[in-house]
Amino acid sequence: MKESWSSFDTFEPSFRPLVVIELAKGTKEETREWLTKRIVDKKANGGAQLLVKPLVTENGDQNIYLVGASHFRLLLGAESVGLVKECNDNSMRTFTYSSRKTFKGFADDNHNFLTMAECQYIIKHELENLRAKDEKIIPGYPQAKLYPGKSIVRRLLTNGILVQIFPLHDREELKKLRHTWYGRVKIGYQPLDEIRCYFGETIALYFGFLEYFTFALIPMAVIGIPYYVFAWEDYDKYVMFAAFNLLWSTVILEVWKRFCAVMTYRWGTLLMKRQFEEPRPGFHGVLGINPVTGREEPVYSSIKRQIRIYLVSLPFVCLCLYFSLYVMMIYFDLEQWALDYHKENESNFSSLMLFVPSIIYAVVIEIMNRIYRYAAEFLTSWENHRLESSYQNHLILKVLVFNFLNCFASLFYIAFVLFDMKLLRQSLATLLITSQILNQFAEAFLPYWLQKRHKKRMKKKMYSQKTDTGLSLVEQVNLEKGMGTYFGTFDDYLELFLQFGYVSLFSCVYPLAAVFAVLNNVTEIYSDALKMCRVYKRPFAEPTASIGVWQLAFETMSVISVVTNCILIGMSPQVNALFPDSKMDLILTVALVEHMLLAMKFVMAFVIPDKPRDIQIKLARLEFESLEALKQQQMKLAAESLKE
Amino acid sequence: MKESWSSFDTFEPSFRPLVVIELAKGTKEETREWLTKRIVDKKANGGAQLLVKPLVTENGDQNIYLVGASHFRLLLGAESVGLVKECNDNSMRTFTYSSRKTFKGFADDNHNFLTMAECQYIIKHELENLRAKDEKIIPGYPQAKLYPGKSIVRRLLTNGILVQIFPLHDREELKKLRHTWYGRVKIGYQPLDEIRCYFGETIALYFGFLEYFTFALIPMAVIGIPYYVFAWEDYDKYVMFAAFNLLWSTVILEVWKRFCAVMTYRWGTLLMKRQFEEPRPGFHGVLGINPVTGREEPVYSSIKRQIRIYLVSLPFVCLCLYFSLYVMMIYFDLEQWALDYHKENESNFSSLMLFVPSIIYAVVIEIMNRIYRYAAEFLTSWENHRLESSYQNHLILKVLVFNFLNCFASLFYIAFVLFDMKLLRQSLATLLITSQILNQFAEAFLPYWLQKRHKKRMKKKMYSQKTDTGLSLVEQVNLEKGMGTYFGTFDDYLELFLQFGYVSLFSCVYPLAAVFAVLNNVTEIYSDALKMCRVYKRPFAEPTASIGVWQLAFETMSVISVVTNCILIGMSPQVNALFPDSKMDLILTVALVEHMLLAMKFVMAFVIPDKPRDIQIKLARLEFESLEALKQQQMKLAAESLKE
Repeated sequence: MKESWSSFDTFEPSFRPLVVIELAKGTKEETREWLTKRIVDKKANGGAQLLVKPLVTENGDQNIYLVGASHFRLLLGAESVGLVKECNDNSMRTFTYSSRKTFKGFADDNHNFLTMAECQYIIKHELENLRAKDEKIIPGYPQAKLYPGKSIVRRLLTNGILVQIFPLHDREELKKLRHTWYGRVKIGYQPLDEIRCYFGETIALYFGFLEYFTFALIPMAVIGIPYYVFAWEDYDKYVMFAAFNLLWSTVILEVWKRFCAVMTYRWGTLLMKRQFEEPRPGFHGVLGINPVTGREEPVYSSIKRQIRIYLVSLPFVCLCLYFSLYVMMIYFDLEQWALDYHKENESNFSSLMLFVPSIIYAVVIEIMNRIYRYAAEFLTSWENHRLESSYQNHLILKVLVFNFLNCFASLFYIAFVLFDMKLLRQSLATLLITSQILNQFAEAFLPYWLQKRHKKRMKKKMYSQKTDTGLSLVEQVNLEKGMGTYFGTFDDYLELFLQFGYVSLFSCVYPLAAVFAVLNNVTEIYSDALKMCRVYKRPFAEPTASIGVWQLAFETMSVISVVTNCILIGMSPQVNALFPDSKMDLILTVALVEHMLLAMKFVMAFVIPDKPRDIQIKLARLEFESLEALKQQQMKLAAESLKE
Repeated sequence: MKESWSSFDTFEPSFRPLVVIELAKGTKEETREWLTKRIVDKKANGGAQLLVKPLVTENGDQNIYLVGASHFRLLLGAESVGLVKECNDNSMRTFTYSSRKTFKGFADDNHNFLTMAECQYIIKHELENLRAKDEKIIPGYPQAKLYPGKSIVRRLLTNGILVQIFPLHDREELKKLRHTWYGRVKIGYQPLDEIRCYFGETIALYFGFLEYFTFALIPMAVIGIPYYVFAWEDYDKYVMFAAFNLLWSTVILEVWKRFCAVMTYRWGTLLMKRQFEEPRPGFHGVLGINPVTGREEPVYSSIKRQIRIYLVSLPFVCLCLYFSLYVMMIYFDLEQWALDYHKENESNFSSLMLFVPSIIYAVVIEIMNRIYRYAAEFLTSWENHRLESSYQNHLILKVLVFNFLNCFASLFYIAFVLFDMKLLRQSLATLLITSQILNQFAEAFLPYWLQKRHKKRMKKKMYSQKTDTGLSLVEQVNLEKGMGTYFGTFDDYLELFLQFGYVSLFSCVYPLAAVFAVLNNVTEIYSDALKMCRVYKRPFAEPTASIGVWQLAFETMSVISVVTNCILIGMSPQVNALFPDSKMDLILTVALVEHMLLAMKFVMAFVIPDKPRDIQIKLARLEFESLEALKQQQMKLAAESLKE
């Protein structure tokens, strides 16, 4: 073993920096030495066997390190993270070093076999799996305790010794990507495969979903336009629109799963085995034995966590929901006041005033959402979940419920308590448009502007010191380490989720919502792309096979929208006219139709296969092969054991 | 390889017959020779390497063979079917021959390590996997075509050369099992582990579910009794009963999953990997290449199948459903006639006549169900499904829909069209009790009586020929081959499913239904046990980890019951009295409550984990271990490949 791993120690002349490690200013010398030694050390000695170079900045600080790895090392890393690549026979298989020759595009001297994003993901994985051996503390920091098996990088991060780890941009590649993505004005699909190569699967899947969702909205928008143009106010036309909408939203969500399976199969993530999940960095507890791994690690009682969730978080969330409803009632008072004011003095100003309460409310909602978000993050972190996935699920649930209520409570109130369809339409339009404008501004243009200012200042500083060409890497690192951090796709999906709510929940009173959604999404693609390429640090690639919990969230929304649309249709004058004698028959009919629509939705979700047939066959073939291989292996082992 | 497998050829003095093969009378000598040779032949030569002994009956016919296997062979077979057994450290692991020493109760001379049912399952698996090599036909039968890889046993079965394969009973064990199961009058649980050892997991799980379901019904029955005793006719008490019922049915179905996981973990089937599914025996088509396995086998176009399903089966099912509704309308005419008759001449006879239509209808329903069942089996078989599981799912769907309508349509009609609660209660009682009595009779006592007569006749025949003790095996085989075949748990689950419908759909008008269900199930356990032990041939054990599609069916029923109960409660005079002014408010309130109950059901199903925590941890530990092992193996391979 020792001999084999040492073969990576061969000097590699072309050190390619992939990942940047930034330590805190004034980190002790012994800590830095220990850390770099551990990173470079052989696997057999518990190291990561990567390559490290310090980056000396102009003021002599040595707190930034560049991490790279030999080509060999990366290939072995690809095997240990379980990357799936395309073989010469066009099938996708888990990469192993021993079978490397069977993979498409592999050659011992082809260093592009792994994409840069994959290399960076591998390095991140290796760094995070750098574990303490017999160190009890981090050298130089007695307060930073370690125990055998604890991830060193995570301890360094939680103790603030390590400021950040981020992957470097590839200026050449980024320029090319920007050009094909949004550099030229053209109608066409996004270069999803290129985005995936550069940013990884999670982000590519988000953009894929955004694009798919936008295309899926177009039929709705097209059908919605004549309602505006010809000012169709008859409800029977709205009924048709709503019926189309309900079926369509079920179909698009089901078809997305197939679409997603095709993409992630091509990218290999559909086949990637789930890795064993380590505790998240913030998790703490007393040292104990993990019943699953048998390793010593912090243990936190599940009952304590349940108490925190049900006795603190749940009441807090309920309180926030109540507060949100209270604010909503204030909004309606304001609305009433504006209406009275408009009636008293009919002027241009007063009719403008009519829109003021809605706009104020939309702004207040945005602010409340943001504040609540911080509270939710704090609470979920305090709940001390062991796994990142569990943390994420609890956070998403908290945020979704609040956002849903915050955004839609007033609309529900107007629709089902006030029964005011005109006000509903007006509020819907105001909320939708205001939130879209606010989002685009807060999300992309503001950071972009800040980033531009920062860059300018940095450049000025650099150029004033007469940099030579060799400094360009230093310059790049210095530029990028100051950029904002992209915290994942959560906010982007949330925005789409709320938009889907605006479009589908009350589709039969405001068909134009889909048009605005489409318009917003087209600019959203560009502003999100700009954000990814220009504003934020490059994020680490995260392999993923689906949009996860968001699929469930969108499906739940589409179920709720069946209920709301059925009620709205039942309330329409046209439908009421069909049952002149008995309100009861009307309600019963509506309830019957609603139940049938819901049943149809479930049947459709059940009948439409989640994966296209060819993907199913490919997956079955792989499973069959692995079963056959297992059988062969068992036969061999049995034969051997009998020989003995 | 050759040498190692040949070590099984050692003569085993204690041949234990496990499985019986019955060939058709007058099967050609060359066919018999070829078949026995293939069964005995070495693995390396494509044989099954089992042991075969012909059984010479009194009239010299040699068409029955006993199949057994050496202990070694069975252990290797256990590995190839992927049996999961308990280890010395109390964890469950997939059995491998090389790790045999780590398993609890394993010793080279302990032939009870595998239960008899497991041995028989292994032999069945090995026989079914006996595949044609270069034979083009079955020797002696030119019309019975073979192709490389075709299962020989399946071809023999479809051509009628092989009459049946069945496992032998173990008279000693069966006597013990009968004694603990139903031999003595006692209150207590069934010996599920012993049942599982003798009959396999599928049947044990059915009895486990039957027992669990009966216990789960007891609270409902207990709450239901006072309604009858005190003749509570007030609806507000029914409302309470219905509310309890709805929550209870959700809880019991969720808790069953946990209960089931505990059992199947103990039995090892929870961990068993799904084997690759071969085409079912009846599947036919033109020879082609299977895209999954790459093997030559019959291929049948999926489009043709879809056409058969949607253009023939679906219309036929709809026609049957229509016919069933037509019969229902006749029943209501009859009912009306009986009522009129009773009014005209009020006598004991005429009041007895009141029950006649219901009884006739119940009998007609039973008959229609049975006829439809044959049609459904024929149609599903004609649809030519490739996999047994797909065949089963289509069959179950067809039968379920028809049975549901057949059994419940009249009740729905009475409840929601006639609004006659008294008639509903009466019909419900009649239907429930009639169908229970009919079922118990047709299912257990009739076959038991037939079987007893057959046995008596057989015994007479045997004893008249003055049998010696050595003939007892021949006698046993002759007895058992004439017994009926148990066709699986389908009918038993269907019966429970319909019973669940009677209990839950209209629970708020007839609380006594649960009492009858409990009483029926207690006798059902005994009659089913009798059926398994006395009436039918021993069935082959089938490993299974859950009750499969029935879980979904029961859950669907419990969703439907939320809707029906809410409507019934909404129709009750008490609830109506709460809304004296407006029917509309009533209906809206009922609809709101219904939606909230449905939402609560889904949340509960989502929140209650399907597996208890300790099972989850055990599964996670196994997964972790296999990931670690894989990692180790990859490291080793990588190291080796670098050495080369």
